[in-house]
Amino acid sequence: MKIVNKIKDCKSVLKKLKEKGRRIGFVPTMGCLHEGHLSLVRAAVKECDSVAVSIFVNPTQFGPGEDLDKYPGNFERDCMMAEKEGVGLIFHPDAAEMYPPGYGTFIEVGQPGTIMCGQFRPGHFRGVATVVMKLLDIISPDRAYFGEKDYQQIVIVKRMVEDLNLDVEIINCPTVREKDGLAMSSRNRYLSRGERKSAPILHRCLSMAVGMVAKGERDLAKIRGKAVSELKRSDFVKRVDYFDFRDPVTLEKKKVIKGTDKKILAATAVWIGGTRLIDNMIIKL
Amino acid sequence: MKIVNKIKDCKSVLKKLKEKGRRIGFVPTMGCLHEGHLSLVRAAVKECDSVAVSIFVNPTQFGPGEDLDKYPGNFERDCMMAEKEGVGLIFHPDAAEMYPPGYGTFIEVGQPGTIMCGQFRPGHFRGVATVVMKLLDIISPDRAYFGEKDYQQIVIVKRMVEDLNLDVEIINCPTVREKDGLAMSSRNRYLSRGERKSAPILHRCLSMAVGMVAKGERDLAKIRGKAVSELKRSDFVKRVDYFDFRDPVTLEKKKVIKGTDKKILAATAVWIGGTRLIDNMIIKL
Repeated sequence: MKIVNKIKDCKSVLKKLKEKGRRIGFVPTMGCLHEGHLSLVRAAVKECDSVAVSIFVNPTQFGPGEDLDKYPGNFERDCMMAEKEGVGLIFHPDAAEMYPPGYGTFIEVGQPGTIMCGQFRPGHFRGVATVVMKLLDIISPDRAYFGEKDYQQIVIVKRMVEDLNLDVEIINCPTVREKDGLAMSSRNRYLSRGERKSAPILHRCLSMAVGMVAKGERDLAKIRGKAVSELKRSDFVKRVDYFDFRDPVTLEKKKVIKGTDKKILAATAVWIGGTRLIDNMIIKL
Repeated sequence: MKIVNKIKDCKSVLKKLKEKGRRIGFVPTMGCLHEGHLSLVRAAVKECDSVAVSIFVNPTQFGPGEDLDKYPGNFERDCMMAEKEGVGLIFHPDAAEMYPPGYGTFIEVGQPGTIMCGQFRPGHFRGVATVVMKLLDIISPDRAYFGEKDYQQIVIVKRMVEDLNLDVEIINCPTVREKDGLAMSSRNRYLSRGERKSAPILHRCLSMAVGMVAKGERDLAKIRGKAVSELKRSDFVKRVDYFDFRDPVTLEKKKVIKGTDKKILAATAVWIGGTRLIDNMIIKL
């Protein structure tokens, strides 16, 4: 497994692989790899000839006062995990390599970046889109893999890829969960013991929503009300940023379920103590 | 010479050329080709194996009330001229092909897009950068050719290419002028007979600035004052948007010439009647 820090070196390694006709799979990460990332890596290894993983805590997607400085990382451990899965290349730039002095270009993602998490993290998806664009240009993969836990991110990246006519297939892989239902996330390690115990409440409330729809409930405001009051009953829940029902493709807000609806996204962002967690489920009709 | 309207077809034609190892040159245009465009095409034909020209009047770089609807075009004539120069591919999409319903991604170019022409045409360079990005992704050329008449555009495109790590060389070619010094532009055909006769005043004032510096003048405010009052003396000059001295790389405003300065950009935008013309010259020290 090669490890490169420079964009130039990354491009030259990949150029050689592409000249041999290798299909490149790419998994962008912020490091601190867990089973969620590994599921993406495994899919990439299975479907592509060579797999590149980027490990880069992207400063432009963090707002002021967010957890950029304390974001967890363990580069050596990440490399060992990636190598074991068959990754061929780790791209591990520093911030100055990605955003040198005078840097000024950003990707504006429009309306889908202003709702849900975008409403509470202004500029977040602009930063995400920009770094993903840069990484796609550097790696130039055939396929790039994203986890469904960050559902809104996938919608925005797909929109960008389509709008800017990029030749890459965006693959989404299912959320990987702990045994108690908590979606895997590097941020889970911020949780105290008590918070960790309460954190599956996001998954439980989303599951409750799925269950209510399965039983015939069609009033999404009613389901939402029940979910939010259930969340707020927990002492560990400090704030509910949103608990929304959305069109899974356009992210348009859904108030009621129509006869023509086939899938609805239920998504939530909740503060457990000082940690902001997100989760979502697709409700199939 | 192939003519294609669809992004998909354009990509597939170019894919075949690239598989044969052809180096692709690209000249983006809004049509209505003149000797300025042809100089770019000739450079591309000389330096590359296959040349693609796009003809697309990009709506996103026009502001409300600007000349989008009356922008001149003559597609058949453009094709004949391009073919004669050895162009292999014309890409001629319509607006719906480039910006389909639901389109939402734009390239933010930051500060260099807010000065000079950007101050008077808000959103212009955002539209330019976005369409250039899309075209570069569609054509994926080795080299793309831009005319120095649109100097600020070149700076912004180069900045974008560097920031987003694109693998394309941006080549700038000298401004082509009419015998009386007027920089060639599709917009020159908007000019009435009297306006056309007065239009070389932009070039004359830029040349005067070059001459004053050559004679030892170092106070750029003084040169500017003289140029602007010269411009305003003409009955055909309706407004001077700017007459600026700038760093040719960063576009930073220059007030005085320093001993370390090697080149200074003199650039102007002037309304001749109802037509906005731009021009620039590099002052070599």
